[in-house]
Formats: sequence, structure tokens, C-alpha cells
Amino acid sequence: MIDTIKAVLENTQNRTPMVHSITNNVTINDCANIILAAGGTAIMAQDEREVEEITSHAQALVLNMGAVRAQEAMLRAAKIARRNGNPVVLDPVAAGASTLRREMCSRLLSENLVSVIRGNASEVRALAAGAEQETGVEASALDSVTEDNLQESAAWLRSFSRRTGAVVMLTGAMDVITDGTRTAVVRGGSAYLRRITGAGCMLTSLTGVYCGANPDTLLEAAVTASEVMKHCGETAEARVRKEMEGTASFRTRLIDAVSLLNADELTPNLCLQIL
Amino acid sequence: MIDTIKAVLENTQNRTPMVHSITNNVTINDCANIILAAGGTAIMAQDEREVEEITSHAQALVLNMGAVRAQEAMLRAAKIARRNGNPVVLDPVAAGASTLRREMCSRLLSENLVSVIRGNASEVRALAAGAEQETGVEASALDSVTEDNLQESAAWLRSFSRRTGAVVMLTGAMDVITDGTRTAVVRGGSAYLRRITGAGCMLTSLTGVYCGANPDTLLEAAVTASEVMKHCGETAEARVRKEMEGTASFRTRLIDAVSLLNADELTPNLCLQIL
Amino acid sequence: MIDTIKAVLENTQNRTPMVHSITNNVTINDCANIILAAGGTAIMAQDEREVEEITSHAQALVLNMGAVRAQEAMLRAAKIARRNGNPVVLDPVAAGASTLRREMCSRLLSENLVSVIRGNASEVRALAAGAEQETGVEASALDSVTEDNLQESAAWLRSFSRRTGAVVMLTGAMDVITDGTRTAVVRGGSAYLRRITGAGCMLTSLTGVYCGANPDTLLEAAVTASEVMKHCGETAEARVRKEMEGTASFRTRLIDAVSLLNADELTPNLCLQIL
Repeated sequence: MIDTIKAVLENTQNRTPMVHSITNNVTINDCANIILAAGGTAIMAQDEREVEEITSHAQALVLNMGAVRAQEAMLRAAKIARRNGNPVVLDPVAAGASTLRREMCSRLLSENLVSVIRGNASEVRALAAGAEQETGVEASALDSVTEDNLQESAAWLRSFSRRTGAVVMLTGAMDVITDGTRTAVVRGGSAYLRRITGAGCMLTSLTGVYCGANPDTLLEAAVTASEVMKHCGETAEARVRKEMEGTASFRTRLIDAVSLLNADELTPNLCLQIL
Repeated sequence: MIDTIKAVLENTQNRTPMVHSITNNVTINDCANIILAAGGTAIMAQDEREVEEITSHAQALVLNMGAVRAQEAMLRAAKIARRNGNPVVLDPVAAGASTLRREMCSRLLSENLVSVIRGNASEVRALAAGAEQETGVEASALDSVTEDNLQESAAWLRSFSRRTGAVVMLTGAMDVITDGTRTAVVRGGSAYLRRITGAGCMLTSLTGVYCGANPDTLLEAAVTASEVMKHCGETAEARVRKEMEGTASFRTRLIDAVSLLNADELTPNLCLQIL
Repeated sequence: MIDTIKAVLENTQNRTPMVHSITNNVTINDCANIILAAGGTAIMAQDEREVEEITSHAQALVLNMGAVRAQEAMLRAAKIARRNGNPVVLDPVAAGASTLRREMCSRLLSENLVSVIRGNASEVRALAAGAEQETGVEASALDSVTEDNLQESAAWLRSFSRRTGAVVMLTGAMDVITDGTRTAVVRGGSAYLRRITGAGCMLTSLTGVYCGANPDTLLEAAVTASEVMKHCGETAEARVRKEMEGTASFRTRLIDAVSLLNADELTPNLCLQIL
């Protein structure tokens, strides 16, 4: 798998994928910067009068439910992206806290417009069940997948992946990624990721970059995003602790680490398991 | 008072209040990050179709006039928050420069939807008088409350507080906070706070966090926000000077300082006076 | 020219120009912070019900096509700014990728509402030709002006400047700035500027600050913005390399450098040529 991850990263450097994001205003700058740091180019546009034209220039589309107001733009852009064979990555942020967001996700899924879903446990559960158990955006149920329930969670995610036809990434303290057949688990990372806004959105953006450069190996691209985020989170935490800094510096050093990433560093730290 | 501030901070750590913010896009990321740094969780949503549901999950609501376009969302969210007994914190940013913003503030106040007002001198004056004297957002009249006019200013603010039924925080080089009866003055802070965008918005967000965790002691929560901002401003300025950095690093180190805050550090630096 | 640049900077410090920006949400925070770092004050507002009032308080207006949805607000604000004799700076970001943005730029130009245009090569070409060759926002054709085609490019830009009546800044690895008669070339800068989002938007914002304080010498103000950005890019890159940091730190250190700028430092580094 490490060779696959290296291939994903190498393709990304060679292809400089352009990622079109329709995303929330809270973390939009971090998302653009992490896309650039990972070797892509970023365009953020959500006016429905221009999204189809914009999307037609891009290699991947990211739809983040924090921009739920731009529903029409999302639908138009997703149709163009799919028609062009480009991956569409869905982030159902806060879907557990908003019926509007859940319904929009359901619509995108029912029209087969989603290639990859990246969410935390409560968000993915909300998509699957229409449940309303979420009580926050950042810290919600990140630890829901545990060593104890891993096999059970993975089986449930495989089933959800087959049902939606999308690669599913459930991320948190442990990330589980599946295409309905193969399943990968990525451990590690930093607890600081829960203390800044946008760690999830940035992970979704990274997924967009790697999928855009590797449209035929979406599972591998998604696993790469997970692995890079966990590795760079660890790198950033080490630096922040050394410099006696806090959470805002962690955010900066996280994006720094992505921009400085050397694929060879990933090998020894790789905490990847194939189920 | 220092024991009260410690109690406010302790409650915040224990309760992890969720703060729903309807705020401007300029500083929305900093606001979310400072809420997390202070121990809360952040949700930013302003689509009128979902704000009532979102607000019902939260412990506090922040309304920032930089998002004046979301008037309907603000009104709906504020009504739910008040019905649920949750504090609503109003930031009348640039109210002196915009009739639209002043009128929106007046409406919120006339419908008794505001628990705390946090603004600089010209913004608070604009709310009170409908005046149009403001000529900037950042630097406007921050020094208006001086040692010379302090008693007079405090009396005026107490009267404004009683008239609106809200705790009033007039912040600048010197912060004056009153619930109409008791009045606190917080001195200190850093001149760098005027050289970045969002210092005021972030202070309002901090007020939202502490009020969300301490809904029965809003004056004390507001004083805590003021004290934390001034203390962390001083900490950040010291670090920036030591590292020979500029204003963007100050912003990062300010949020860092909030995330690293130790309540015991506040004691010796406390510049609090009760009038 | 260096004396002129010093005069531009001195006027800016003395006049503290207020810049009203109607700009995109991706880089809006960086734009506000660089305006403050350069000695201006920033107000970002795009509700059409308040923009005329807001603009009437400002000394310069920046229109960034990333906010193309706010067309009506842009038109209203530009008319007030021009009536008041204040400079209007246009950033045609991604104009090559969006017909909607090109048409909006054309309208602003045809109504003589633009004082300065700041774009990269593909954006400026798109304005001139209605061409659709752009394939990205950040990295698009930054190297199009080369030593080889410099005289030819400069002649073309002078002609475009005369046709539009605006000072034109084509920026990239080499910046060419002309008022239709005089032409300046600024070399240097940092390749890191292409690895963060917002370098172009921030340069446009800087141009707004210096033009706001120097409305009678727009060419000189634009050259100053170009020179400051290149100089501060070099300063930030040196610091980032020394500290072994990445692209997110570069962004922070870039704004830091603007806030710490000493006009005397510019002299030895000045890479300015008058054609």
C-alpha cells in the first residue's frame, strides 16, 4: 500500500489537479491553501451562473454542506463533473444538526452524483439514518470507531458504500476507508486536529486533490489523504510542542507540513491496516 | 472578582458550550478558532431554513452586524435562543457607518432579543444615538473612554444598559462593562489588537463562549472575556516582539495564548476595577 | 523613482486611507489584514442596501471578481467612489475561466468606473480579448511576460491602458505597470507567492491602500504596491527558509513583513526599471 500512496502523491505532483470547491466561508481559506500545499490548484466559486463553466476546467469537485445555501450551484456543478468523469467529494459537515443539509446530501446521493463521502461518525450516521444525534460540528463523536467495534463498523461502512456507490471515509481518532469491498484503517494523528476549526474540511479538500489526480484509484487516493493528514498532524504537533505554541500555530504548521511533505517520510510512520 | 473569573473559566471547560454565530466572512475563521481555543465548540450557519434547528443545539448565539444581509436568520435564531434561555450577544460592528446596521440593531433591541452588547465607543454611541460619526471599522474611537471621562462614561453606559436590558461592554484601550448596576473597568491589553482585523469580533466570540457556559452570571462572563483578551493580547505582543514578528503573527499568537491560558496567570496581571 | 515610492509610503502613513473592498470570501481576511499592515483601515461590505453609504466614508474602492455575485453592489459603490474622486481598483480574478466575470469587468470598464486594473497575464488578456484560455486561478501564466517579450508586452499594455483609461498592472514573475505613457518594470519577488492563495488579491488590496492615500499619482502608487509585495515576499521567504517552515508560515510572514516595512530597506533591493 505504501507504494500505492507514493504513486498517488507522484501523480498529484505531476498533474497539478485543479479542484473546484463549493464550500463554507469558515474554512475556505484553509481549504484553498491546503490544496495548493498538496500540489493542486484551487478555485472556489458558487455563483450558479458560472459554476458549470468553472467546473469544466477542473479535475475534481468538492461539495461541503457548510455551503448548503448554494444548492443549485452544487447540483449543476456535480452533474458537469460526473459527465466529465471527474470525482465529486462530499463533506456532509453538520448533517446531523440540520435537516436541510441531510436532505441535500440525500438528493446528491440519490442522483448518483457523489464519488467519495468524507465525514465524522455522526455525520456519516446522519446520512445513513436520517438521525439527529449530532450536537456539534468539530468534536462530535470523533471516537466512535474504536478498536472494540472496528470490525462491526467496517462491515457497516462497506454496506453503506455499496448502497451509495461511493467510497466512504469515516474519519476521527481512527479513520476507516472503504470502497465496499476493500477496507483500510489509518491510525495515529494528533488530538490538536480537534482543537482547530477546519480539520475535517481540509481533509476533504486533500481528498479532492488526490482524487483529482488519481480518478481511477479513488480508494487509494482517499487513503492517501487520510494518511497525509494524520502524518502532518503529528509533525505539526511535535513542532508546536517544541516551540511552546498553541492551536492557531498548529493550524499554520499543519498546512506547512503538507507543503513540505516528503513521501519517503510516510513509510516508517505508516499506521495503515487492510481489513 | 478574580475568583469569579476563575469560576467562569472553570464552568467553560466543564460545559464545552456550543456557540452558534451569524457573523461576517472577514473574521469568521478567527472567531471559530478562538471559540475552540477558549473551550467551546463552534457552529456558523446563516441559512434561514436551518438556523432555528442549529440554534436549538447551542448554548449561546452571537449576532455580528457584518452579516447584516442575514437579517431574517438573525431574527429567527435570536427568538429561539431567548425562548431557550440562552444568551444572545450582539456586535454592532460598523453600526456608525451604516444605517442598515443601526436599524437592524434597533430592531433586535426593541424586541428584547439581546443579552449582551459588545462594541467600541463609536459603535455603542451609534446604537444609542443613531449618530453617524463613525469613519472606520477597526480604529474608530478606541480611546474614547479615558481616565478623565471614566465616571461620566460609566454613568452613561449604566443608563444605556438599563434602557436596553442588556449587559453593555464598551471596549477599547480601556474596557467598561456594566449590567446597569455594577460596573467593571479592565485596563491593559496590547496596541497590536488595533492593527489586526477581527480583534473586536473575536472578543465578542469569547463573550459568547463564556456567556454560554455561564448564563446566570452574564456580567461576570463578559468581564472574563475582556480580561482574557487583554491578558492574551499582552502575552502575544511579548512573544511577537521577542521573535521580531509582525501583525499576522500577533493574530496567530493571540489565539495561541487563549488556547494555552492558565487561569492562575490572570491574578497578578489583573487590571480590574469595580466602580 | 525611489523617492516617489517613499513619498507614497509616507502619505499612506499620514493619511490612514480607508479602503472599501467588495471581495471574495477565500482571501477576505488576508486582504483586510494586509490593508491594516500597510497603514490603511479596512471595511468589507457588499450588501447593496449599504454599499453607497459605506463607500462614501472610504478613500478607495477595491472590486474583486471573486465576489461577482455582488454585481449590483459593485456598480453602485463604483459610481459613488468615482463621483467622489476616489480610485477604483479592479481585480479580474479568474476572468479567463468565467464568462460572467469577463462580462462584469467589461461593464465596469465601458462605464469608465475603473482607475487601476491589477491582474496576472491570463486575466488581463481575458479582459482585453474576451479569450477563454485560463485554466487556473493561482498559477495561471504568471511567467508570460519574459525578458524576451518585455518590450512587446509593454507596448501592448500601454495600448490597453490608453483604451481603458486605467493604470494597468500585469503581475507575475515580472510586474509591468503602465499608465499608457510611462511604464515601469519590477523584478524580484518570491516563488512562494504562487504557492499560497491570495497573493494576487493581497497585491490588489495593497494597491487600494496606496492609491487611496495618493489619488493624484496612481501609477506611482501602483508601482509602490508591486515593489512592496516583491520586497516583502523576499523577506518572508528568507525567514521561512531559515525557520524551516512551509507555505502557511510564508503567508503569515508576508503580512508580517508588510507591517514591519521600513521604506529605507527598499532602496538597495529596488529592481525597478523605467521603459
